[in-house]
Amino acid sequence: MDAEPLVFTLDQIKNVLDPESLIKSQEHGFVAYSQGRVVVPPVGHLCFDDPPGDCHIKYGHVSDGGWFVVKIATGFYRNPELGLPSSDGLFVVFSKRTGQPQAVLLERGFLTDIRTAAAGAVTAKYLAPRSLRRIGIIGTGIQARMQLDMLRHVTPCREVLVWGRDSAKAELLKSDPATRGYSVEIVRSVAELAAECQLIVTTTAARSPLLYADHIRPGTHVTAVGADGGGKQELHPEVFAKADLKVVDSATQCRDYGEASYAIKAGLVKQSELVELGDLIRDPQLGRRFEDQISVADLTGVAVQDIEAANLVLQRLVGL
Amino acid sequence: MDAEPLVFTLDQIKNVLDPESLIKSQEHGFVAYSQGRVVVPPVGHLCFDDPPGDCHIKYGHVSDGGWFVVKIATGFYRNPELGLPSSDGLFVVFSKRTGQPQAVLLERGFLTDIRTAAAGAVTAKYLAPRSLRRIGIIGTGIQARMQLDMLRHVTPCREVLVWGRDSAKAELLKSDPATRGYSVEIVRSVAELAAECQLIVTTTAARSPLLYADHIRPGTHVTAVGADGGGKQELHPEVFAKADLKVVDSATQCRDYGEASYAIKAGLVKQSELVELGDLIRDPQLGRRFEDQISVADLTGVAVQDIEAANLVLQRLVGL
Repeated sequence: MDAEPLVFTLDQIKNVLDPESLIKSQEHGFVAYSQGRVVVPPVGHLCFDDPPGDCHIKYGHVSDGGWFVVKIATGFYRNPELGLPSSDGLFVVFSKRTGQPQAVLLERGFLTDIRTAAAGAVTAKYLAPRSLRRIGIIGTGIQARMQLDMLRHVTPCREVLVWGRDSAKAELLKSDPATRGYSVEIVRSVAELAAECQLIVTTTAARSPLLYADHIRPGTHVTAVGADGGGKQELHPEVFAKADLKVVDSATQCRDYGEASYAIKAGLVKQSELVELGDLIRDPQLGRRFEDQISVADLTGVAVQDIEAANLVLQRLVGL
Repeated sequence: MDAEPLVFTLDQIKNVLDPESLIKSQEHGFVAYSQGRVVVPPVGHLCFDDPPGDCHIKYGHVSDGGWFVVKIATGFYRNPELGLPSSDGLFVVFSKRTGQPQAVLLERGFLTDIRTAAAGAVTAKYLAPRSLRRIGIIGTGIQARMQLDMLRHVTPCREVLVWGRDSAKAELLKSDPATRGYSVEIVRSVAELAAECQLIVTTTAARSPLLYADHIRPGTHVTAVGADGGGKQELHPEVFAKADLKVVDSATQCRDYGEASYAIKAGLVKQSELVELGDLIRDPQLGRRFEDQISVADLTGVAVQDIEAANLVLQRLVGL
């Protein structure tokens, strides 16, 4: 009982995580969150100027769970100039019975990335139209690849269009292991992508809109995962206004930042129109009812995703 | 550079920490704090009911330092029933240049305890009267022992009186290694202790006053270290009012909780009368000028103490 906490490396964590279980864990987490069974205090934050970077501390627990989780995540955006990834971090898991640290997960940002991708898959599972013929990915980074790698578990669609600012980077996606089994085509504009795709996932760190309302055809679902903090934006606020179904991971958080916040601040959307993903999972009546509806989901990231991902990893690693 | 963070155990940490360097590190930290060179966001907090416990997350950095530190500390007060210590925790140290985690210090609460004791020694160094003949310790727990073990480095006084609710536990102090070289006598009342001691350190988790103003004679310094959170109190508010010198580790924090907060709320002390320890270290004119003055120091614990303690440990362990 008074043993040292177990320390697990990124390789150990990657080895035990299977996508289907992770997707299930995220579904479970969103439901618990929307049922009010999750305790998540405000995010802690440190900001650095030289070089620019930030640190977020997310922590909390599911009321009926045995653990609480503290995630420390950093983003230092000039790291690639040093040959280093821009994101890093780790999780610490504690017992709710004794307060003792049980495990340190040296996940280096991987769990945050992959739980975000798994949440994208959950969203597609519940909201993508049945007649999905093409997936459109906006952005060409880690999250673009991970989203595709997760989507294979919730849809048989294997036709993909990709748009990115850097077309050379977009070309690299074609040979990325994450896109195996997909037919990937690079397009020259967001408009072209949106015209052809019934599921669009935006995965960029954009700070001004890339996707506009007039791009979007009936029978489309859009998931936006990039706006995980203040100042970030991928969708024009009219996209949210135009959508028949306006879905968010957290109604309170999406009021403060993320895509929905811009639409609310612009007076285009009322908070009461937002449906939480966790509520929709429990009651699919809240989701897509007609093929030609437009749905939008704003995933800003909630700590319960980290809690559930950590729970799954620990179950696999130590049978907790 | 992209190496795994180093993980250090409690034994490794204990092996490299020497009391004199730790005391110096705390002095340095208090000065940096009072000079406004420390960035310390609000403390993160989780609270549990069954069993009762809490988790505090303290984090921050010294502006001109190369690291930032996140400390996660837990207190689960029924742990002793399970044969476990009530406090636990760990530190994570990150690079301010890359955001990468550099080290995980599995200190299990030890660094918090020992930096608190070192801060007590700093306070005694600057505020105890020269004619110190007896040290009085109120409380018989870990902090009582650690305070004595640190005080030996700042005073030649070796006469100690101890008072505790549990006299059997007090007797155990006599044979504790931390009290080697001291002559320890157990007294039956706080009044008796205060009548004989010129330096009094209160180290309990009390939630109502133990030490009253009429206990305290001229030429006494009192350091209170127990009130590290809301609801805790060891000194009657009149003690603060009676003191010629009213010292705190953090003027803003001591307004919110700790001994000074009760005196301020009772209208007995103005915030402008409080002197920060860091200011007093830089300008001893702010400290004791006459032997018969009464001084009181309220140490609620500030994150810079953790940052400096972690810096010292890392310097010793990896030469950072």
